[in-house]
Amino acid sequence: MNEATHPARPIVRLRPNKAGARAVRHGFPWIYADELVLDRRSRALEPGVLAVLEDADRRAMGLVTVNPNSKIIARMLDADPGAEIDRAWFARRLTRALALRETLFDAPFYRLVHAEADGLPGVVIDRFGDTAVIQPNAAWAERLIAPLAEALTEVTGVSTIVKNGTGRSRTLEGLAEETVVLQGAVAGPVPVAMNGATYMADVTGGQKTGLFFDQRPNHAFAQRFAKGARMLDVFSHVGGFSLAALAAGAEAATAVDSSAPALDLAGQGARAMGAEARFTTRQGDAFAQMEALAAEGAQFDLVICDPPAFAPSKQALEAGLRAYERVAKLAAPLVAPGGVLGLCSCSHAADLGAFRTACTRGIGRAGRTGQIVYTGFAGPDHPLMPHLAESGYLKALFYRLLP
Amino acid sequence: MNEATHPARPIVRLRPNKAGARAVRHGFPWIYADELVLDRRSRALEPGVLAVLEDADRRAMGLVTVNPNSKIIARMLDADPGAEIDRAWFARRLTRALALRETLFDAPFYRLVHAEADGLPGVVIDRFGDTAVIQPNAAWAERLIAPLAEALTEVTGVSTIVKNGTGRSRTLEGLAEETVVLQGAVAGPVPVAMNGATYMADVTGGQKTGLFFDQRPNHAFAQRFAKGARMLDVFSHVGGFSLAALAAGAEAATAVDSSAPALDLAGQGARAMGAEARFTTRQGDAFAQMEALAAEGAQFDLVICDPPAFAPSKQALEAGLRAYERVAKLAAPLVAPGGVLGLCSCSHAADLGAFRTACTRGIGRAGRTGQIVYTGFAGPDHPLMPHLAESGYLKALFYRLLP
Repeated sequence: MNEATHPARPIVRLRPNKAGARAVRHGFPWIYADELVLDRRSRALEPGVLAVLEDADRRAMGLVTVNPNSKIIARMLDADPGAEIDRAWFARRLTRALALRETLFDAPFYRLVHAEADGLPGVVIDRFGDTAVIQPNAAWAERLIAPLAEALTEVTGVSTIVKNGTGRSRTLEGLAEETVVLQGAVAGPVPVAMNGATYMADVTGGQKTGLFFDQRPNHAFAQRFAKGARMLDVFSHVGGFSLAALAAGAEAATAVDSSAPALDLAGQGARAMGAEARFTTRQGDAFAQMEALAAEGAQFDLVICDPPAFAPSKQALEAGLRAYERVAKLAAPLVAPGGVLGLCSCSHAADLGAFRTACTRGIGRAGRTGQIVYTGFAGPDHPLMPHLAESGYLKALFYRLLP
Repeated sequence: MNEATHPARPIVRLRPNKAGARAVRHGFPWIYADELVLDRRSRALEPGVLAVLEDADRRAMGLVTVNPNSKIIARMLDADPGAEIDRAWFARRLTRALALRETLFDAPFYRLVHAEADGLPGVVIDRFGDTAVIQPNAAWAERLIAPLAEALTEVTGVSTIVKNGTGRSRTLEGLAEETVVLQGAVAGPVPVAMNGATYMADVTGGQKTGLFFDQRPNHAFAQRFAKGARMLDVFSHVGGFSLAALAAGAEAATAVDSSAPALDLAGQGARAMGAEARFTTRQGDAFAQMEALAAEGAQFDLVICDPPAFAPSKQALEAGLRAYERVAKLAAPLVAPGGVLGLCSCSHAADLGAFRTACTRGIGRAGRTGQIVYTGFAGPDHPLMPHLAESGYLKALFYRLLP
């Protein structure tokens, strides 16, 4: 069925006396499963189908996409219940998203679409020059990937489009893992210029979409402490903070990661920058590597730890916070007197206050004390819906540890 | 009495079974009045006197300054109860503070000391090249201003030192208002280069210390939307955001403030930048001016509102949040489709979540919707003690309002 022509769109209805209707009227984009009337018909809807959302009084509220398998059972797509979700509709949303990025950035390397906040629920698109990587993390986008990809080509002129179907969100939506090149061809890692550094993004085999654009402002802040510094980048991935530090004149940078392919890409980036003589890597478990460095008596002027999400869900929060505390405790002794320690979290479940408490405690347990000089979030190509602003996942805290 | 020689320092003692001792051991710098044993002797201590803090078991915990008139009855100065608080002590703290700023900034215009986080409780020092402005907002610093000023000259080489004794904190400490030139001479406003703009800081007659350095990173973020933009700067003070926008290529900037002297300084800054032809001012109540602009049908690509603290205390929180909501509601209609609205709060009592809710609600009540593209705080020359990090007073939220 071509959903864009919607000959007979199903209807889903909000239960009475639930806060859902009011929230949706105020712009909240999600409907939770317990807010919807669930009968045999609605339960049988195919994941990703488009439907008209009605309130309990049968007034149409807008066009939603429904996934009966998901806790977020419906996501608002358009206030117009009769909207055609076709190539032209996608093109309008993408044009709006592109306008923001073209104002913000000189070169076409950025997150182009950040899901709900850019009007495309569950859809993430990163742009690497002529290549775009789509993460369709909601079932509706998986179904409509063809008109989305067409619109993407039309609006941005990219020649290559990769669909990256990995990650936790897809599992929650009941989607399978699958990464394919939808259009064009990928010939090895794509060089990406950011903050004066050169990163190598593996857009088909790497983590997420190949490079984390979200840390851009935090990389830039770290650069202010980099000149002449000895720098340590723990959980480095492809060298986000270390290559930024080298670009800003670090005397030496060491990247630590468990992934040999990620460190290899970091090394390629350092070579592309002509900085390979100042760059070293240590492959292995980051906790063990920090303990080994401490045993060696190593000290650095700037240490950054950007671990994977230790608290991806509410259930994992306590264990996650303990892990963040442990990272801080192991990293603090590696910071020279007066040096700077940057600690990052990309855990949705750990809010800023809880993350800061864990970090402060870990630093204290290492016998160190400091000032917080910076609190940063994801860059402006990762906008937030005001109603989902609590969900800002990325936090970066920079402590200056006192002598 | 020369306190530095402390022939017989008084002792103050924590009450048993209070959380205070544990908090202080973990680095919390304040003791509240209900945590201290208050007898006739401690009540009679002169505000600002130095004393040895003991726990309930009479173990010395450090050197504090006591002010029986203040809710924060004691502030930790030094973990060493026998520390000499003399010129050399101040010089050590100032040297540590200066090292951070010299790493961060190319030119000597910054907040040099940000109170507790820089080891000088209640003391704020802003530096404008050869001129420094001290705000001794706690009684101890008022008493020891002489060795502090001497150390300041020694460490930084400034020739002029102003004591600015205004502001709410001093009232809470029971200190009188008084602004005097302690050293050197002030010959008119000081030009300050920041983010490519030139600001005129009135270091003796202006608000606070003459210029708000804290907004520096938020000015810089606003500049990313400034090129070719029509810009409106509401509650402009000396033109913080408008001159930054002009420096970044704004087509036109309008500053609105109730203070004619502040707008005059803004105009002087625009002239110093050669941007006077692109700069206009509107003097008057900001709320009334926004209503008048809306009545004229005026629209801008970038609107920033940086009002005074509407919620300076917990008691004022509800009324303050309503005022922030009203600012957002009046400002949103002045933003052109696709334009950007920056909303700031310098209220301690309004935390980020509450402020964001008020702003989002105000924008919604104006019939607009948007994405949050940026959440900013005070710059890194305004560090925070980890244990007081909740008190980060300045918040800046930038919304892109959708077409």
